[in-house]
Amino acid sequence: MLNDKPVLGITMGDPASIGPEIAAKAGAEKKLYEMCNPIVIGDAKVLQNAVKITGAGIKIRPIDGPDQARFAYGTLDVIDLNNVDMDKLELGKVSAMCGNAAFEYVKKVIDLAMERRLDGTVTGPIHKESINIAGHHFSGHTEIYAHFTNTKKYGMLLVDKNMTVIHVSTHVSLRQACDLVKKERVLEVIQLMDAGLRRIGIDNPKIGVAGLNPHASDGGLFGDEEEKEIIPAVKEAVTIGLNVDGPIPADTLFSKARGGSYDGCVAMYHDQGHIPFKLDGFVWNNQKKQMESVRGVNITLGLPIIRTSVDHGTAFEIAGKGVASHEALMLAVEYAVRIASGN
Amino acid sequence: MLNDKPVLGITMGDPASIGPEIAAKAGAEKKLYEMCNPIVIGDAKVLQNAVKITGAGIKIRPIDGPDQARFAYGTLDVIDLNNVDMDKLELGKVSAMCGNAAFEYVKKVIDLAMERRLDGTVTGPIHKESINIAGHHFSGHTEIYAHFTNTKKYGMLLVDKNMTVIHVSTHVSLRQACDLVKKERVLEVIQLMDAGLRRIGIDNPKIGVAGLNPHASDGGLFGDEEEKEIIPAVKEAVTIGLNVDGPIPADTLFSKARGGSYDGCVAMYHDQGHIPFKLDGFVWNNQKKQMESVRGVNITLGLPIIRTSVDHGTAFEIAGKGVASHEALMLAVEYAVRIASGN
Repeated sequence: MLNDKPVLGITMGDPASIGPEIAAKAGAEKKLYEMCNPIVIGDAKVLQNAVKITGAGIKIRPIDGPDQARFAYGTLDVIDLNNVDMDKLELGKVSAMCGNAAFEYVKKVIDLAMERRLDGTVTGPIHKESINIAGHHFSGHTEIYAHFTNTKKYGMLLVDKNMTVIHVSTHVSLRQACDLVKKERVLEVIQLMDAGLRRIGIDNPKIGVAGLNPHASDGGLFGDEEEKEIIPAVKEAVTIGLNVDGPIPADTLFSKARGGSYDGCVAMYHDQGHIPFKLDGFVWNNQKKQMESVRGVNITLGLPIIRTSVDHGTAFEIAGKGVASHEALMLAVEYAVRIASGN
Repeated sequence: MLNDKPVLGITMGDPASIGPEIAAKAGAEKKLYEMCNPIVIGDAKVLQNAVKITGAGIKIRPIDGPDQARFAYGTLDVIDLNNVDMDKLELGKVSAMCGNAAFEYVKKVIDLAMERRLDGTVTGPIHKESINIAGHHFSGHTEIYAHFTNTKKYGMLLVDKNMTVIHVSTHVSLRQACDLVKKERVLEVIQLMDAGLRRIGIDNPKIGVAGLNPHASDGGLFGDEEEKEIIPAVKEAVTIGLNVDGPIPADTLFSKARGGSYDGCVAMYHDQGHIPFKLDGFVWNNQKKQMESVRGVNITLGLPIIRTSVDHGTAFEIAGKGVASHEALMLAVEYAVRIASGN
């Protein structure tokens, strides 16, 4: 290695998505090379095309593995899986070809990190329908990572400038989400949050735990999950020395967290955490009919390897236009570096 | 009447809360008298004390009914129910005395409006626990209004600068909220929203309907309420000529609405709507440990009388300090005036 910066594997994401474009734009940022030694895992032809679309002005250098990388600013090293047929590629469309290709990048980056040939991994957006019609039955990156790293206890930390959120459950129906609010899982997620915040450099983090029901059940008037599951979990977390409050009514927790009261928020279900997170970090441009800013980052906790990700999706509607923002990808790299550097 | 401005009855709210203080502060605003002919319903002694606490610099004039009101700026007309014992009043505390007093103000303002002696009503904050220990078993203002006006179909419209929200259900457990997502109710709420937006002066309002499940169930992967209940309701709403989209994943709907894509959002349960609404309208001051801004307004739709309200609570923790903001109360008055004036 030419320097002691961490070597990060960055997946290109779905070839039909904005993933290649944001990888190309990030690859053209001097700051990327100041933070880390980057390697993209993807398809060199697709990236070449993305460089053209975005006007990124960099060279794409296909390599076989991390040992061949040069990390020279201006020439982006790409582990080229060569798995996209450019004649068949339709930007902005769901397809089995692209779903399979995107899945292979993820699988590859996990393998390399597990072999310690990468210090950390950063993922671009994939499309669930595309990977599923390609025969890979996962609901998202997190589940793919958990599967191939054989991880049972894990959580996603959503991080942006003002707010850090973890979920007790994510991609299940709201009814099932209610069933999954169990003391053991709530405590596990509090501990994952505490460990995650420490990994990104926050000492003795203060954690706020949301209630499941409106007004956190208002003393038992609406639902009993607070009394039966959440309060016991919070009490146990406090007993083992964590700095935890709750259950707090969800409609005030996130306002308070944004104002600085909590370093992290534990959400009981997908939308409870994603609604405030995206409202805070995403800005919709109604003229252009697109999200202007999508600055959220997703960190998977509990894995034996480092993984951060953009929190936005494939944004098929703007794929190929060269307008996608690489802000979230840069932030995802920054967090991977912070974790890899141990602060 | 000296002018054609609407006569509004404004309840003082819980005597132990910030309610009297914000009423006194609003009463000292020239703008209040420019918008309407205001009458407070409360306890004159408590309001006198609130004038002292806040330095509002106005006189309190006890009256028996609207016919005695003079609406003279500088002297606040108060229908004095004289139901608080000042020796027993403890600011910032739950009590049956204050719960009963607050309930009586609400009951009185409803009666006066039903008798057409008021053109509209605006309510200050009450404390649910206090009214319940006083023997009045309601979960909030909306239910009290529905009961005493004999209204079956109603909804709460939450309005602030950037966002307008209505809920399919509110004060029930999250599990029960899932059960209440029924086509008929969703359609009813869409229609209430449409009518409500027109009442505050928006022509052909565009309404976004949230999904219940994450990603609006992602085509049926997580839950079936979208397919069985919400989609049929949206289709029927479109058939009868309303401008409605949905179901839209809740974690993007509110960002889009804030950006101007929708005039109103239909939320499937309490927190789904209250989380984004409060995140947008409430600002937490972490130094002072209090909400700096609480600018939401609550409009009850479907009633035979006009009712708007502050959306914040009793804020017992700052009661008596004179620091509470009357911004939301002024906005609630403004909306009551807009509705009373038919635009």
